[in-house]
Amino acid sequence: MSLVIVGTVAFDAIETPFGKTDKIVGGAATFAGLAASYLYNKVKLVSVIGEDFGDDNLDILRSKGIDVEGVEIVKGGKSFFWSGKYHNDMNSRDTLVTELNVLADFDPKLPDSYQDCKYLLLGNLTPQVQIATLDRLQHKPKLVVLDTMNFWMDVALEDLKEVLKKVDVLTINDAEARQLSGEYSLVKAAQIILEMGPKYLIIKKGEHGALLFGEGQIFSAPALPLADVFDPTGAGDTFAGGFIGYLAKVKSINFNNMKNAVIYGSALASFCVEKFGTEQLQQLSPTDIGQRIQQFITLSRFELIDEK
Amino acid sequence: MSLVIVGTVAFDAIETPFGKTDKIVGGAATFAGLAASYLYNKVKLVSVIGEDFGDDNLDILRSKGIDVEGVEIVKGGKSFFWSGKYHNDMNSRDTLVTELNVLADFDPKLPDSYQDCKYLLLGNLTPQVQIATLDRLQHKPKLVVLDTMNFWMDVALEDLKEVLKKVDVLTINDAEARQLSGEYSLVKAAQIILEMGPKYLIIKKGEHGALLFGEGQIFSAPALPLADVFDPTGAGDTFAGGFIGYLAKVKSINFNNMKNAVIYGSALASFCVEKFGTEQLQQLSPTDIGQRIQQFITLSRFELIDEK
Repeated sequence: MSLVIVGTVAFDAIETPFGKTDKIVGGAATFAGLAASYLYNKVKLVSVIGEDFGDDNLDILRSKGIDVEGVEIVKGGKSFFWSGKYHNDMNSRDTLVTELNVLADFDPKLPDSYQDCKYLLLGNLTPQVQIATLDRLQHKPKLVVLDTMNFWMDVALEDLKEVLKKVDVLTINDAEARQLSGEYSLVKAAQIILEMGPKYLIIKKGEHGALLFGEGQIFSAPALPLADVFDPTGAGDTFAGGFIGYLAKVKSINFNNMKNAVIYGSALASFCVEKFGTEQLQQLSPTDIGQRIQQFITLSRFELIDEK
Repeated sequence: MSLVIVGTVAFDAIETPFGKTDKIVGGAATFAGLAASYLYNKVKLVSVIGEDFGDDNLDILRSKGIDVEGVEIVKGGKSFFWSGKYHNDMNSRDTLVTELNVLADFDPKLPDSYQDCKYLLLGNLTPQVQIATLDRLQHKPKLVVLDTMNFWMDVALEDLKEVLKKVDVLTINDAEARQLSGEYSLVKAAQIILEMGPKYLIIKKGEHGALLFGEGQIFSAPALPLADVFDPTGAGDTFAGGFIGYLAKVKSINFNNMKNAVIYGSALASFCVEKFGTEQLQQLSPTDIGQRIQQFITLSRFELIDEK
């Protein structure tokens, strides 16, 4: 039984109002894998990198017990590189550089040892790679979570709709939910998207928290109000990793556990944005996470009597 | 012991993507008073109207047990009139007409019977009128809630800062909190604003809920996700009225009751936006409100164990 995460392992260079970095380790699978590793001990990545990535950088993942056998190293290749600059509000950014490099020809390879996959996170990647990964698993996983973004709605909508038919949970942001559904109201958007395939939909709203839709219910999760958002890069991937990591840990898939998983995802994402890149995600302790979960409980709990 | 609400009683003409109205009854004190009347039975308004307002329109308030002795009727005068058009996202609007009329010379008059004021809502109005009202009360109320808006920050900031020193709770939206504090982070903004005078700050975030700051704590209240937001006019006033109405009902001022008051304010505001103007606020039943509160409980409750 394992949790398999497919996504990018890459380099980022980030500029925010608080400073800028040289090339640092990033990528959707990196953030998601690190987040999940705090909740579940059999996390396995599928990705592709170039020789430039370096074994010491892979050690960041290995040191958290993450299996990187499925991370293909292309000889003489260069790793995917993204560079971006955040505006003062930290909610919008300009992409400065996107070098696909080895990602351009990524054909996901699943080692035999990954065939015990029970929980699958299809991280933000081209829908073709997401479909290929699903096809290469001999057994349908118990839970498939899909993360995607507006870019794939623009350039590969039909492929994306094919993937949507095969997944249990979709995580996207509010603008993407509106784009995918053509509805401004998130309640109506959710109804339309849930008819496209997924049983559950999570709409991420950044500093405004997240909404979970499914089983005819809605759950509204708060975001932790932070004095400083240092670098939002990877927050959505971290959320997805924490979300599926929690469900892999508790094993049982139901709306109550989904709600808790959203809180765990949100808590891990709140750590992610406090430092550049994966820095904060590399150094958490169980106590840190427990205290942060407690902050979410305190933040949103009120004591009106249940009139049911 | 009474709850006194100072604010406009007026006419609105509203256009939304769902339709448009002729002149209908509106005004901050109208919305706030109606909302508060469902929670507390001694609500008294201070306002000014023209002869055009009509006794039948005042009956809308009287029928909810609201005392309108403090609503001055200016002979031959015309009531304040606002007309606006909402954009498709319902989060932004253009003001088409603002006719101050009798509001231009509003000098708030407090009948003797209002001197039992224990809870005071200074609805969105010029800070001078808000100060005058405070000055004319012989006894300091137990709780003073101030609602204001960006317009007064633009044209009467120093007066507004004077009022801020005399109130217990301030309710503004997120953009206004950023404007008033000069800080983008709402956590930092709250720190600065709480040093200006109020002990509690509520930041209203529309479809994203509300944040309550005070006593070194933060509470994040959800908004009810709605399939259709029909007309947002008056939602903030309704929130403020429901908020102070709940506190007047429960009497005890502490952070836990403040949290519950935010939920009641949010619940009443969620009704307000479902129809044009005050239509929905005129016809609620205790059962409606109880069921809506239950929806807020269900919406935000999760069951992770408190690790305190």
